[in-house]
Amino acid sequence: MYMAEKTSYEFEAVPQEVDFTLRMTVPALVGAVLDTAGVDARRKGFGIDELNKENVSWVLSRMAIEIDERPRQYASYRIETWVNEFNRMLTTRNFTLHDAEGRTFGRAVTQWCVIDLEARRAVDLTELAARCADKIVDAPSPAEKPRKLAAIAPTCCREHRVVYSDIDFNRHVNTLRYIDMMFDMLPYDRYVADRPLRLDVHFLHECGYGQLLGVGCEERESATLFEISCEGTAAVRASLVWK
Amino acid sequence: MYMAEKTSYEFEAVPQEVDFTLRMTVPALVGAVLDTAGVDARRKGFGIDELNKENVSWVLSRMAIEIDERPRQYASYRIETWVNEFNRMLTTRNFTLHDAEGRTFGRAVTQWCVIDLEARRAVDLTELAARCADKIVDAPSPAEKPRKLAAIAPTCCREHRVVYSDIDFNRHVNTLRYIDMMFDMLPYDRYVADRPLRLDVHFLHECGYGQLLGVGCEERESATLFEISCEGTAAVRASLVWK
Repeated sequence: MYMAEKTSYEFEAVPQEVDFTLRMTVPALVGAVLDTAGVDARRKGFGIDELNKENVSWVLSRMAIEIDERPRQYASYRIETWVNEFNRMLTTRNFTLHDAEGRTFGRAVTQWCVIDLEARRAVDLTELAARCADKIVDAPSPAEKPRKLAAIAPTCCREHRVVYSDIDFNRHVNTLRYIDMMFDMLPYDRYVADRPLRLDVHFLHECGYGQLLGVGCEERESATLFEISCEGTAAVRASLVWK
Repeated sequence: MYMAEKTSYEFEAVPQEVDFTLRMTVPALVGAVLDTAGVDARRKGFGIDELNKENVSWVLSRMAIEIDERPRQYASYRIETWVNEFNRMLTTRNFTLHDAEGRTFGRAVTQWCVIDLEARRAVDLTELAARCADKIVDAPSPAEKPRKLAAIAPTCCREHRVVYSDIDFNRHVNTLRYIDMMFDMLPYDRYVADRPLRLDVHFLHECGYGQLLGVGCEERESATLFEISCEGTAAVRASLVWK
């Protein structure tokens, strides 16, 4: 059986993506990873443009990203990506991030489902998996898959009304805005540090324009836990571990 | 005397930049224009990377942008840019936006000063102007220059505490976040419309991490006026005219 190869995309850390440490922000790196997923899926013929024709679309269910070091402004870097798993409900897309010298400075594992755009319900992937069989790459995920995340006991909380700049083409809060909301809760000295980190995120429920979100945060010894709720329902859970 | 030519940059309207009308948002178009300014200045040898070596940097003072029609998702478009004026305090950079068929769908005029990064004060541009003389393009601005904007009498107001995702490498609120904050104040039906518009913005005062902003909005018959203030000081003023 023909097996596909990993695909590679080139990037540059542009001024709009760096913070005052002159290194790319973690949310910007997550953005580059998710953009790569979209571009690669489209290039391989199973992007949202193709899926939308059948009134279904990709939705990110869980992600884990490990970042050892953030690229400096104007640095070139490369993201390698491959899909290595397709089951009835989820597909797994993997990423490794490499600097200009070829050193790996990050790894990500993402799990996606396909939802019916009318019913907003996950659809069975069996048929799509068959169509995509020759796009699967026989290589293991580069990091532990997204971990289980339980409810949290928030020690701080902010409210946020969903506005136009938060939403995507589906009128739901953009994935990256959730990442921003969580990083915005951190104490200032965390932004200065360039310590290796691992971020696990679960997307549980879609939030829409005008809804009131609660962004909760619980500091534990080894991790910062987040839960974003939307009018009483847990919408996003995350864990940020600094190594 | 040698005069420079306009320079042209190619873009594609990517899914992260479109709203639910499947057209690029106005803030995303402003972003593309400002990114073009940065890339073109750098390419011509007077970008922020060069200026920062002398501890000075470009700061956007005023801008005007006219958008006749917003590009559809995945549409290719092109931005042409040129600097046509350098005086002691300001330089004027111009833009025209063209669709894949070559039709002009937008125009922008931006005015920049150079500030001393320590003193946060504008510096005299005479010396820089002399160095850049061969980069000036002898072509008029494609639209009326940024208009005068007076104080407003807000009919609605929101507060916003400046967070990490709002700030740039200078720890000041990113220009695009101000544009987002203003567009987020509009009534929902304005987002659906694809009417030609003109946006004039003045940047008066820098706001930093942790400061409390007031975003005021005044609806007039022919325009929506905005004023963002930062702890009592007017920081940004804007006027949005729908044609």
